[in-house]
Amino acid sequence: MTKINLNEKLAAFDERWSPRIIAAVQGMHVKLAKLEGEFPWHSHDEEDELFLVLRGTLRLEFRDGQEELGPGELLVVPRGIEHRPVAKEEVHVLLVEPATTLNTGNVRNEQTIEAPHWI
Amino acid sequence: MTKINLNEKLAAFDERWSPRIIAAVQGMHVKLAKLEGEFPWHSHDEEDELFLVLRGTLRLEFRDGQEELGPGELLVVPRGIEHRPVAKEEVHVLLVEPATTLNTGNVRNEQTIEAPHWI
Repeated sequence: MTKINLNEKLAAFDERWSPRIIAAVQGMHVKLAKLEGEFPWHSHDEEDELFLVLRGTLRLEFRDGQEELGPGELLVVPRGIEHRPVAKEEVHVLLVEPATTLNTGNVRNEQTIEAPHWI
Repeated sequence: MTKINLNEKLAAFDERWSPRIIAAVQGMHVKLAKLEGEFPWHSHDEEDELFLVLRGTLRLEFRDGQEELGPGELLVVPRGIEHRPVAKEEVHVLLVEPATTLNTGNVRNEQTIEAPHWI
């Protein structure tokens, strides 16, 4: 039981769209990610996904709308809902999602991270 | 799917040791709490509990040690581990824990919140 400092963990990597695991709670993973640009549309059949923005502005697009999240704002994308994260500039985000969650959900492409690293 | 602003939610209540639910993700609840003073020793038999400090300094005491968490620091207390949160001054914390989690765990006293409110 050692505390985890988010800024120290964020300083440990720089890759975009490559979530790193920092903690586990009840079968869920807590991850940090750096986002920049547009991610593919995707959904997660079985997994809800929480986004908490730590830095920057994250646009979460849905088929029927969108939300813009700044630091200190969160949103839960329920399972099955198609979404596309867009970060015009660098965004740092904390994710809470089941350990089974694939970053690209029902899509597999060159941005798919099959096994995220712990940091 | 509407974004949730943590500061707006924190402004909506002032009671200490009375977590409010702000979101649900995969059967877990995301809560906000304002802490001040010492809480009873307790543990949760079946539930891991994540503390993310948003403001102030939270001391988490364990039977064999302690950690002091500042803003941007988190710690997961695994199920079954006795702990005591202590906040010398006001602390704001975000919690992630199963929806079944009782704030006082295996202890029931006047600080027990049987059914936390959504805000």
